[in-house]
Amino acid sequence: MEINKAGKEIPQEFIKQYGSYAGEFERICPYQEASRKINPVRPRESKKVATIRAAIEKTGLKDGMTISFHHHFREGDYVMNMVLKEIADMGFKNISIAPSSIANIHEPIIDYIKSGVITNITSSGLRDKVGAAISAGIMQNPVIIRSHGGRARAITSGDIHIDVAFLGVPSSDEYGNANGTVGKATCGSLGYAMMDAKYANQVVLVTDTLVPFPNTPISIPQTDVDYVVEVAEIGDPKGIAKGATRFTTNPKELLIAEYAAKVITHSPYYKEGFSFQTGTGGASLAVSRFLKDAMIKDGITADFALGGITNAMVELLEEGLVKKVIDVQDFDYPSTISLGANVNHYEIDANMYASPSSKGAFVNQLDTAILSALEIDTAFNVNVMTGSDGVIRGASGGHCDTSAGCKMSLIIAPLVRGRIPTIVDQVNTVITPGTSVDVVVTEIGIAIHPDRQDLIEAFAKLDIPQYTIKELKDIAYGIVGDPEPIQYGEKVVALIEYRDGSIIDVVKNV
Amino acid sequence: MEINKAGKEIPQEFIKQYGSYAGEFERICPYQEASRKINPVRPRESKKVATIRAAIEKTGLKDGMTISFHHHFREGDYVMNMVLKEIADMGFKNISIAPSSIANIHEPIIDYIKSGVITNITSSGLRDKVGAAISAGIMQNPVIIRSHGGRARAITSGDIHIDVAFLGVPSSDEYGNANGTVGKATCGSLGYAMMDAKYANQVVLVTDTLVPFPNTPISIPQTDVDYVVEVAEIGDPKGIAKGATRFTTNPKELLIAEYAAKVITHSPYYKEGFSFQTGTGGASLAVSRFLKDAMIKDGITADFALGGITNAMVELLEEGLVKKVIDVQDFDYPSTISLGANVNHYEIDANMYASPSSKGAFVNQLDTAILSALEIDTAFNVNVMTGSDGVIRGASGGHCDTSAGCKMSLIIAPLVRGRIPTIVDQVNTVITPGTSVDVVVTEIGIAIHPDRQDLIEAFAKLDIPQYTIKELKDIAYGIVGDPEPIQYGEKVVALIEYRDGSIIDVVKNV
Repeated sequence: MEINKAGKEIPQEFIKQYGSYAGEFERICPYQEASRKINPVRPRESKKVATIRAAIEKTGLKDGMTISFHHHFREGDYVMNMVLKEIADMGFKNISIAPSSIANIHEPIIDYIKSGVITNITSSGLRDKVGAAISAGIMQNPVIIRSHGGRARAITSGDIHIDVAFLGVPSSDEYGNANGTVGKATCGSLGYAMMDAKYANQVVLVTDTLVPFPNTPISIPQTDVDYVVEVAEIGDPKGIAKGATRFTTNPKELLIAEYAAKVITHSPYYKEGFSFQTGTGGASLAVSRFLKDAMIKDGITADFALGGITNAMVELLEEGLVKKVIDVQDFDYPSTISLGANVNHYEIDANMYASPSSKGAFVNQLDTAILSALEIDTAFNVNVMTGSDGVIRGASGGHCDTSAGCKMSLIIAPLVRGRIPTIVDQVNTVITPGTSVDVVVTEIGIAIHPDRQDLIEAFAKLDIPQYTIKELKDIAYGIVGDPEPIQYGEKVVALIEYRDGSIIDVVKNV
Repeated sequence: MEINKAGKEIPQEFIKQYGSYAGEFERICPYQEASRKINPVRPRESKKVATIRAAIEKTGLKDGMTISFHHHFREGDYVMNMVLKEIADMGFKNISIAPSSIANIHEPIIDYIKSGVITNITSSGLRDKVGAAISAGIMQNPVIIRSHGGRARAITSGDIHIDVAFLGVPSSDEYGNANGTVGKATCGSLGYAMMDAKYANQVVLVTDTLVPFPNTPISIPQTDVDYVVEVAEIGDPKGIAKGATRFTTNPKELLIAEYAAKVITHSPYYKEGFSFQTGTGGASLAVSRFLKDAMIKDGITADFALGGITNAMVELLEEGLVKKVIDVQDFDYPSTISLGANVNHYEIDANMYASPSSKGAFVNQLDTAILSALEIDTAFNVNVMTGSDGVIRGASGGHCDTSAGCKMSLIIAPLVRGRIPTIVDQVNTVITPGTSVDVVVTEIGIAIHPDRQDLIEAFAKLDIPQYTIKELKDIAYGIVGDPEPIQYGEKVVALIEYRDGSIIDVVKNV
């Protein structure tokens, strides 16, 4: 055991393999970029393959290989289940899967784990039943949780080497030029899939909308694609849009959002040409609304908004309050339409969004970001992965990437949820280290990280109640009582990689 | 000495190093893609550097390294001369330069070769004084001539490894997002530069138009860029547009163009959704005009036009006769504007345009291409590199890429030029092997490659005089007499790589 820089105990074997988290930028060094094996395509050769099974056969997939998928279809994804079913039916074993994330709809993987088809997983997150099964210890090897930027880093560095990527695309031509803005089930940006396309040895596109060559715009180019398979349906548009959230009417969330917007508009970063990222939760969307009112009142426009994009952001773009929207993922239908139609709505890949090892990601240029939390502890560490019962149910996402890159990160959360405190002595699972967190915003007031004396001074006269993080914790505990410690087992079921590839935490079985 | 598949004698030492040309697709095999060393950029780090000299210092350039440039500014380029002057002034020696091509304006490199600053060159072409100096034997090491697709292949395979790319860009933000459609000296597509940006260890952008972050559209992304330098002027718009050619009024060229258009419109490929590439010469532009008239008359539209793009192609796009223009390079100002404004005018890189080792280049999807020639021989081999005096003055360009990829290649040329035959017994220098050539079009008629019995049948009733290639040669020789053999020296001054990296010919000193 060794205690890392985030204050968490990490078993020696994992430290040996991955290194121990040592600070946000301690392990960012020059490196040789990974590369793929390319099988050139000659004139008159076709990439069209009749079925997923035939495509799997053509790739020469073998037991022990790594395959990947993207999560742009979220709860509407049919592709990962279709491909895994074929792979299981064909009798493959010991497959590693490296999807950009895993949703509830991917519940069938529980059986594939049990039957030995899948033996390794890396993902941004695990939801509901899959998360519960993993937390119960059904896998021999721990799942590796990576942030969106961390996955990009792992791919570009070769830590994740994808043998075959199976990428669902809303439209493609027969030569593999694909995008997410045209088709029966549009998902908008293909920012996460673009990584797999560029670095995988072989790429199989799966689409339900085959269009004449050449399909444009080109998010995934023909030069990254080996095979194209047409299927009846790649996904359910309703499930794809499940990331969308309505504007909240919850008074507590509205108060948090109002405070967060006020923190931003009273910060040194709020000026003509500023930039921001907001999330998709109810309170996050409400922040956009309050921010919008302030920007109109103050005559201030933002140079860009970044992130997972929702209609709230598209409206700001269309109203001229935001000059450009930089988009790695779309959470609702209107934003997929905007990406296809508005030249100032621009698609980028995950490397350009958030990788700590790139020649400069967009998160590095961000003034402020609003991020959510399941738990925040008195060292400002944030957990977005495990519930208060210790069970995996969240996703790392871009949380630690954005907070490390931006100039001022805001973590918004209610002080308590039901009978559970949100501000705690120590989070169950560290996803984002406290050094990346600048301001915690709750419905009773804010806590500023003591390292940010500049912000403490800037906010001295702000009319929002201010506390130390310990005071917030004490109030939370005062309301709901001290939380019961979780009874973990001895088995490590998930490794939490920090974006640089080191281990910032582990999750044990419950 | 060994005689290769194109019938040319290649000295053993070069065969050993590069392999001997053995046929168009004989050497296209799976390979591990080359990669770059990446120096990650952390938040708050700036890429802005005050001067070119300071940027060179920051890159840690050393004697013996390889640097590169792009040729999108053609005769208007200031960047290569500016950078090389600094490098010479700083005392560097033994530098390899790997520009995508070299123009007349780059005449200063003659002195840098003589002074030992530059000791190796690879390029698509060499013009006028530089070509003459190389042909005179001023370099110890032969220049390596690569086609546009061949250069892309060489970069992706690691045959060309660029230590530092100095890329002039019409606009960039301080973080390195650049395009060619905004700025003081626009060049449109940055298709060739995009290769260097993706594979060079370090990339220095040089711009005269610094715009607010984030600059869009993004042709070269921030994730490919290490440093950004602002200078007063990157190029002369008049020189940049020097690729533009007016519509010809020369009756011989018009007749060739009319015949070429007729060959296309009477071929099996001329149908709804066909595709084509035309060049920039007077006759090529005239082909577009004749083709346009036929397409209107026949009610046929093309799915795409490819290539180096001129206003003639943009007009076809705007008139709806061509659905999409796929653009690796722009030859005039109107096409740079169109690329920035028309969503159906799409920018691609050189790998996607023409590399034989990619997962499928656009040339592979092309129905027909019209290409020019300095010489064509009775084996249909084409020379676009050396003049009738044996002196280097041309460029390989996309000639062998396009003809190998497309379904029907047309080589258009006058039978004689002045007192010099164009159709000859053996070309001075083979750029494109005869097996890639389908129809030769002259002002007196056409010759169809005997391997294309399908075309011979298809054109049986075409009202254009038809000859064998030997008959065309005999007529040419009959008009101007047998050409005098060139008195070459013993020194190899240039190696002609076929697109697959093998040596298809060598050029000796004159």
